[in-house]
Amino acid sequence: MNSTELVKHIENKRSFLCVGLDTDPVLIPAAFQKEVDPVFAFNKAVIDATADYAVAYKPNIAFYEAFGPKGWESLQKTMEYMPKDVFTIADAKRGDIGNTAYKYAQTFFDPNCAGFNFDSVTVAPYMGHDSVEPFLRFEDKWVILLALTSNPGGHDFQMTKSEDYIPLYERVMRLAQSWGSPEEMMFVIGATRSDFLQKVREIAPDNFFLVPGVGAQGGSLEDVAKYAMNSRVGLLVNSSRGIIYAGDNPAIDAKREAKKIQEEMSMYLDEYYIK
Amino acid sequence: MNSTELVKHIENKRSFLCVGLDTDPVLIPAAFQKEVDPVFAFNKAVIDATADYAVAYKPNIAFYEAFGPKGWESLQKTMEYMPKDVFTIADAKRGDIGNTAYKYAQTFFDPNCAGFNFDSVTVAPYMGHDSVEPFLRFEDKWVILLALTSNPGGHDFQMTKSEDYIPLYERVMRLAQSWGSPEEMMFVIGATRSDFLQKVREIAPDNFFLVPGVGAQGGSLEDVAKYAMNSRVGLLVNSSRGIIYAGDNPAIDAKREAKKIQEEMSMYLDEYYIK
Repeated sequence: MNSTELVKHIENKRSFLCVGLDTDPVLIPAAFQKEVDPVFAFNKAVIDATADYAVAYKPNIAFYEAFGPKGWESLQKTMEYMPKDVFTIADAKRGDIGNTAYKYAQTFFDPNCAGFNFDSVTVAPYMGHDSVEPFLRFEDKWVILLALTSNPGGHDFQMTKSEDYIPLYERVMRLAQSWGSPEEMMFVIGATRSDFLQKVREIAPDNFFLVPGVGAQGGSLEDVAKYAMNSRVGLLVNSSRGIIYAGDNPAIDAKREAKKIQEEMSMYLDEYYIK
Repeated sequence: MNSTELVKHIENKRSFLCVGLDTDPVLIPAAFQKEVDPVFAFNKAVIDATADYAVAYKPNIAFYEAFGPKGWESLQKTMEYMPKDVFTIADAKRGDIGNTAYKYAQTFFDPNCAGFNFDSVTVAPYMGHDSVEPFLRFEDKWVILLALTSNPGGHDFQMTKSEDYIPLYERVMRLAQSWGSPEEMMFVIGATRSDFLQKVREIAPDNFFLVPGVGAQGGSLEDVAKYAMNSRVGLLVNSSRGIIYAGDNPAIDAKREAKKIQEEMSMYLDEYYIK
C-alpha cells in the first residue's frame, strides 16, 4: 500500500487506529479455545469487530513464532483474512545485514516465500544502513524504523547525546531519512510528552509515525494528534490489549473499544488535520 | 550449556569454531535437492562432516523463516539432530521488550513452545535493558548481544562518541555487564583490527565473544586469538559459507575446510591460551 491509499483510508474511516494483534493463546476467551485454530479464530473475530474503525493491523510476530510452525500457520491465515483496505505491519523488529536482511524482507513482503504480503516491517537501526536498505528494495513496502521507544530501557542508549549534543534517536531519524523517502519509511515513536512529540515532528516533518502505547499505558491521544500530526495525518496510533482483551466477546467488547478510540480520533482530525 | 562445559568442549576438540548454517535452498548441491527436506538433509550432512572440528553451530534464522512453517520444520529437525557436545546459537538478532521479548526467549529456549532448545540467541541492544533481561531468566541459556559489527553500516551509530567520548558500542558493552554475568552473556564482536580487539577485551575481560566473518571476509584468525583470547578461551569464531558451500560434497569439502580451521585454532590455543 502506498501513502496516498493509506491517507485515503484514514480520511474515509476518520481513524488512524492500528490494532495490535498480540494474540496470546492463554488469554483468548474460552469460546475460541474449542476451535481448530483458536488464535486465528480469535483474530478473525477481532478483525470483523474492528475493521470499520481501524486503518492498520499489527501482528506481534513473537506471539506467533513462539508456537513454531503452528504459530506461523495461524499468522498466514490471519493475513489471508485481512480486508483489502487496511495497512498491515509485521511487528518483528528485525535487524541484520545484507543477504540476511533481504531474507527477512522476503519473509514478510514476498508472498512466494513464507506466504505473507505485509505492507511493512518494524526494523532496528543498530547495524546501520545496510541493515535497512534490503527492505527498501520492495515496491510500495515500508520500513518502520525504531527511533524513540517509551520503555524504561529506551533511555539506556537512545537518549545518549553525542559529542555534537545530538541524542542517538535523533541521529537515527536524521540519517535514516537519507536512506529512504517518507514514501517508504516510518518511525516508531513512543513519545507521549508534548516537547518530544514536537521535536520528533520537527526532525522528520514528512514521515509517518507509528505510536505504540497510547491508552492503557497512559499516553494522551490528544497530545499525539496536536503535536505530531502533519499535512498527511502522518500518524498510526496502536492499541493492542486495550482492544483485543477488552472482554470475552470481541464482537461487542473489542468493537466498543475500537469505536471509542475512532470517535476520539475523528474529533482530533477535525481539530488538527490541516491538509 | 554452561561455560564450564563449553570450555571443556573447546579444550577437547582443540577448536573454537562455530559453523554458521545459513542454508539457502538455492545453493544446496543438486544431490540434496531430491530429498523430502533438502535443507535438513544438507544441514545433517554438514553437521556429520564438521562435528569433530566445531564446538558450536549457528543457524541463521532468516534463512528458515523465509520459508514459513516448512522452514521452521527444517530448523526443528536440524536442532533435534544436533550432537550433545555442541553449543547452539539462534542467530535471530531479536530486540523487543517485556512480554514480547519473553515470547522470543521462549521461542528459542523452551522446547515446549516452538520445539527449540537453543543454548543462546543473538539480541540487539537498541531498546535497552528491558529488551535483554527476559532472555536472562532462563537457566544455562545465553544472550549474545550485538556490540561491534563489521558491516559498513556498523559505523553509522556504533562508533558515535557520546559527550564523554565513549563510543556507543563501548557503552553497550559496559552497561550490559551490569545486566548479566559472563556466565550468561556474550558479545558479537566483528572487529578484525588488532587495536579494536585489544580494546574490546579490555572492556569485557571475562565475556565470550562471538566473532563472525573471519576467513572469507578477510579477518585474521591469528589476530583474534592473539588479542582477544582470555583465560577461558572466550572466543567462538564463526565461518558460514566458507565451510558449508566449500564444494558439492559436504562429507569431503565442508570437512576439509572445518578441519583446516580447527588445525589453525589448535596452533593458536597452544600459543595464546593461558589458563
